[in-house]
Amino acid sequence: MEGEATAKADPPPLPTKHSIIPKYKHTLAIHSKARPSCLSHDRETTPSFIGFRNLMVLVLIAGNLRLVVENYMKYGVLIGFSPGSFRPGDVRLGLLCYLTVPCHLYIAYLIELTAAAQARSAQATQKKTDESKPVKLRVRWRLIAFAHALNATLCLSISSAAVYWNIDHPLIGTLCETHAVIVWLKLLSYAFTNRDLRDSFLENHPVPAVYAACPYPENITLGNLTYFWWAPTLVYQPVYPRSPSFRMSFFLKRFGEMIGLSVAIWFLTQQYAVPTLRNSVIAMDRLNLAHILERLMKLSTISTVVWLCGFFAVFQSGLNALAEVMRFGDREFYSDWWNSASLGGYWRTWNRPVYQFMKRHIYAPLRGRGWRHGPASTMVFLFSAVLHEMLVGLPTKNVIGIAFVGMMAQLPLIAVTLPLEKMHGSAQTVGNMIFWTSFCLIGQPFAALCYFFAYSLRNQGAR
Amino acid sequence: MEGEATAKADPPPLPTKHSIIPKYKHTLAIHSKARPSCLSHDRETTPSFIGFRNLMVLVLIAGNLRLVVENYMKYGVLIGFSPGSFRPGDVRLGLLCYLTVPCHLYIAYLIELTAAAQARSAQATQKKTDESKPVKLRVRWRLIAFAHALNATLCLSISSAAVYWNIDHPLIGTLCETHAVIVWLKLLSYAFTNRDLRDSFLENHPVPAVYAACPYPENITLGNLTYFWWAPTLVYQPVYPRSPSFRMSFFLKRFGEMIGLSVAIWFLTQQYAVPTLRNSVIAMDRLNLAHILERLMKLSTISTVVWLCGFFAVFQSGLNALAEVMRFGDREFYSDWWNSASLGGYWRTWNRPVYQFMKRHIYAPLRGRGWRHGPASTMVFLFSAVLHEMLVGLPTKNVIGIAFVGMMAQLPLIAVTLPLEKMHGSAQTVGNMIFWTSFCLIGQPFAALCYFFAYSLRNQGAR
Repeated sequence: MEGEATAKADPPPLPTKHSIIPKYKHTLAIHSKARPSCLSHDRETTPSFIGFRNLMVLVLIAGNLRLVVENYMKYGVLIGFSPGSFRPGDVRLGLLCYLTVPCHLYIAYLIELTAAAQARSAQATQKKTDESKPVKLRVRWRLIAFAHALNATLCLSISSAAVYWNIDHPLIGTLCETHAVIVWLKLLSYAFTNRDLRDSFLENHPVPAVYAACPYPENITLGNLTYFWWAPTLVYQPVYPRSPSFRMSFFLKRFGEMIGLSVAIWFLTQQYAVPTLRNSVIAMDRLNLAHILERLMKLSTISTVVWLCGFFAVFQSGLNALAEVMRFGDREFYSDWWNSASLGGYWRTWNRPVYQFMKRHIYAPLRGRGWRHGPASTMVFLFSAVLHEMLVGLPTKNVIGIAFVGMMAQLPLIAVTLPLEKMHGSAQTVGNMIFWTSFCLIGQPFAALCYFFAYSLRNQGAR
Repeated sequence: MEGEATAKADPPPLPTKHSIIPKYKHTLAIHSKARPSCLSHDRETTPSFIGFRNLMVLVLIAGNLRLVVENYMKYGVLIGFSPGSFRPGDVRLGLLCYLTVPCHLYIAYLIELTAAAQARSAQATQKKTDESKPVKLRVRWRLIAFAHALNATLCLSISSAAVYWNIDHPLIGTLCETHAVIVWLKLLSYAFTNRDLRDSFLENHPVPAVYAACPYPENITLGNLTYFWWAPTLVYQPVYPRSPSFRMSFFLKRFGEMIGLSVAIWFLTQQYAVPTLRNSVIAMDRLNLAHILERLMKLSTISTVVWLCGFFAVFQSGLNALAEVMRFGDREFYSDWWNSASLGGYWRTWNRPVYQFMKRHIYAPLRGRGWRHGPASTMVFLFSAVLHEMLVGLPTKNVIGIAFVGMMAQLPLIAVTLPLEKMHGSAQTVGNMIFWTSFCLIGQPFAALCYFFAYSLRNQGAR
């Protein structure tokens, strides 16, 4: 603890106020006034701690560097790409799904086209006769709704069945299932929105100002639907805010980021996550709790890094690149979820497209029917829990309910952290730390462990 | 990567601007204006990243928790206090050193007392005869200087010899040696300052305004010296700025912090540092470079934590507690060294008492004699390198020069990082990271490894 100091850089080393004593250096008044230490509470200003941020980054790197060396010494390089790891049948079926699923969008277009024609003629009759909505029309709307429901259900269920029974590789399965779910949500939004637009049209009810450029039946065109198909949103609007122009450099940067991050995720998963997951199967098998915990802690860092890379790749790079191509104006695909002081705050901010879908097509209509906040948001979570289970369980052939329970179990946690969000100062930090711990450091690696364990058990059984 | 969103907390869920369409919820204009993503450069404001700071703290804790579990599974609890680990002879000799070393301060007092008497009479003669400084007086001043030099040298060398040859335990040795070095530096400062004060007195040269309350010969009193002995500074001044009163609660808090941190350091060292050091002896023995590197990385985290705890315990808690008792006003024992953009900046800020000593009694006088900045600061580093080697080498009986070389090797690093300090923005971050890496993450753990290795080799040889 004994230390040292060097003389300093500026050439006139003595403070000017002591220049009256240039001869007798040893009498310099070093202690000339009373002042508190820099870290004492007596001091009015707190010093900057940016140096400690730098230290933390370095310690994180140094800590993981050790794991990198350890991993390399144990396993060598695990990366290798063999096209043979994908079955040709999987690839063919995956492509088929990818091509057929959007067809359901065009079936929905045809349904809407007939509905629009009926609405037009109904409005014409209404104007002439000025009578109220006839019973005949109501039956027709029911038929339209039934056709949409059938179409959407077929879209999701055919894909899901193909993924569950016929696609072996989890990666291809996940891509197909995700695509099917996205198109299914778009189908629902298209149908619901047009139904309400039609009703507004028949009742001459005002619609939001943004839609003025394309009033109801005019929006039922192939071009309008195709734009919605590719637009980075799950919420149908006849008109979207557009960006002024396509910027090639912006697109290339975002696209490059997406490719780079995808490679990084692939590398990290193969080299670090997979060996840890493999080693943990034994611990899970024997239900050795201490060992499972140790594995979980080892997994949590890598899963957090992969999660952050994945978030950035999809929501910042991927969706912005797509939005640039589509000249889609509203780029708020996420807001600062990393500062969330509660789990509820996180769900509202990290995935805005899905949040907006839920808010517009589930929560708001339920509230409109008089449901209270609690049941309405439970409904939203129930819906989303089913979707999560489908997205994780079907491609891995393990509908074991962990993702479902993982989603539903957050409702009590949300209730607990809600007060923290409303407080200020350190309560927000506590809430934020609860979010990171429960979600990134425990929840996700634990779910990954469970599905990996179930997946490898199933594959052992198959052999 | 597919996700989910919950409906939110505030009871009126629909933005008021859409309240014109309370009936048709599905037509809500979700995308009403163009806006960039929160992390895009298009955006004017950058979001807060405080959440990521929280995540880093958590990852650091989680990462070390794993090491804690690993360490416990491997070694169990290593802590145990047996008074038998200290030889009674060591304790006796240590106490003797602690009591005799300050006696040299009082010898210095007697020397100064005779010098002051001579100065008084010389001034009286001067006034009467108005003649220039006689040759006789110059010889006397040389005798005084010789007496001081002898006294100071004896103080340091007797203690050092006792520590090197007769004290076995490194902890007791380090405490004795540190105490001796501190008193030695105080002796030097007392002698140099009073010499210059005496010369000023004889020449009627003005002294700094702070000293006005106690002009030269009046400061040569037992009380004045005793205050300097206990004051938390290495620089003698006849007068110090004082704090208005002794605050018991402040003292108790600082004292409690010091005790708590000392226990923490002891625990961390015994439980985490010592096993790692022991394991690394084999790697050092075989010169297995990869293994040494791995050990170094494992050590660097714990050594940084111990270093930070030690810094806080001594410079914030310890010196502030002492200053409170002494009502010593100038509490600037350190400034924000953690933000240093260069190694030179670090040495100027982390240990202000030693820095102030070096500046006043080595650097400034050398500059006054016409030395340039480079040689003068090299001199300071040379002096400090010798002291470091004594403080580490003597108690561990390994004067192997690592501490000396470690200090001197910083001169080129300081020269390299100097330009970084003067730049702005990210250059400062780079400089700060170079400081942390070279100093905390590599330098200190490497030095600890070397001395531990030499110490255990020597102990093996002794058996």
